[in-house]
Amino acid sequence: MVKQASTRPKQKGPGRPEGLSNIRDAIMDASESKFADLGYAGTTLREIAEAVNVTQALISYYFGSKYGLFQETFLRRGQKISAERIELLDSLLATGKPTVREIVRSFLSPTLALRATPQGRSFLRLQARLHTEPPEISYPLRTDAYGASTQRYVDAMRLALPTLGELDAYWRVTLMVGTYLYAFSDTHRMEEMVPKGLYDAEDTEGLIDQVTRFVTGGFEAP
Amino acid sequence: MVKQASTRPKQKGPGRPEGLSNIRDAIMDASESKFADLGYAGTTLREIAEAVNVTQALISYYFGSKYGLFQETFLRRGQKISAERIELLDSLLATGKPTVREIVRSFLSPTLALRATPQGRSFLRLQARLHTEPPEISYPLRTDAYGASTQRYVDAMRLALPTLGELDAYWRVTLMVGTYLYAFSDTHRMEEMVPKGLYDAEDTEGLIDQVTRFVTGGFEAP
Repeated sequence: MVKQASTRPKQKGPGRPEGLSNIRDAIMDASESKFADLGYAGTTLREIAEAVNVTQALISYYFGSKYGLFQETFLRRGQKISAERIELLDSLLATGKPTVREIVRSFLSPTLALRATPQGRSFLRLQARLHTEPPEISYPLRTDAYGASTQRYVDAMRLALPTLGELDAYWRVTLMVGTYLYAFSDTHRMEEMVPKGLYDAEDTEGLIDQVTRFVTGGFEAP
Repeated sequence: MVKQASTRPKQKGPGRPEGLSNIRDAIMDASESKFADLGYAGTTLREIAEAVNVTQALISYYFGSKYGLFQETFLRRGQKISAERIELLDSLLATGKPTVREIVRSFLSPTLALRATPQGRSFLRLQARLHTEPPEISYPLRTDAYGASTQRYVDAMRLALPTLGELDAYWRVTLMVGTYLYAFSDTHRMEEMVPKGLYDAEDTEGLIDQVTRFVTGGFEAP
């Protein structure tokens, strides 16, 4: 049922028209916004095609299917975030034994830049939604993008917290993922609840500080 | 744009056919499952009508509109959870000064029973999805169901943790909500990651224990 990415046409090659990667990127940008707002089932290729002013046939040519487009849209940023997480963790481990707080911070920081643009925020919402999509939509993509890097963070946490059991380490990394997905995806729950003047929704440094402290406390709990 | 619940026909009254509340409940059960799987935009009244074997006109008669149905489906359980949370918190406060752990546990426990049935699990997924739906869909419902009870938990946490600032208290309650929504909504992230034999997905007591310890640690963080 799931169309594999490997069946897609190559991005670059002889005979491809100029500006192809721009068109591909524009299609993925529109896809990111639509899937983020409407979910997988609620989004049609027709709407995406209209938003970019291309034909549905062109989208099918580049991405194979709706799922192929969803997949590439998610992996475009997901794989980059994952690679940055591994790089940051490697740097930390190279300089000694990192603290829980440093590990949490290196997990979160690759997604922070995405908060700066509307398109990046669409990805964060898309990613939060992905976890509530039916299994056949979400599982292969999550594992593909994040399986390896998340395992590295489980291992790093067990190094930093030698008394933490293996199952507890998996649990706490999973709960860290849930916490940050919610906090970073513009749910606007804070704006609704907090008395006026106390909370600044644009304070991204405040956001990462709050999530880092909460999650670090969660990891260090008995 | 949003159809108000107050415009719906009354649930009981003279001249209503027998079994009406059963039909209403069956429609809401189907609605809960479909909206949980497909999101708001991806669900059609036609699919829900077919699942219950009623006409779309009957659904419109009872619920007014797709949004009306979504709203009542969410509030059916959401308001009950919220009332139970307040009741549990009141019992705790009546017997002395509750600990952070007790407050967290009373917040989580009304949703635990929902984990025991497929229909309850649909609600938990629907609820997790609600937070990623566009603002006009999600904000009024969240506030309607949970605004008052969540504020009570912010106040209770500030009593239990006198050094916790007001903004920090709002943040930590918000992050608790994000953590539990993710953990309780069958994202199956643990099954994917944990080595075989170490994790039991049906261990609900283990689930609540992990979430309680993590969130309590988060609240008690510096």
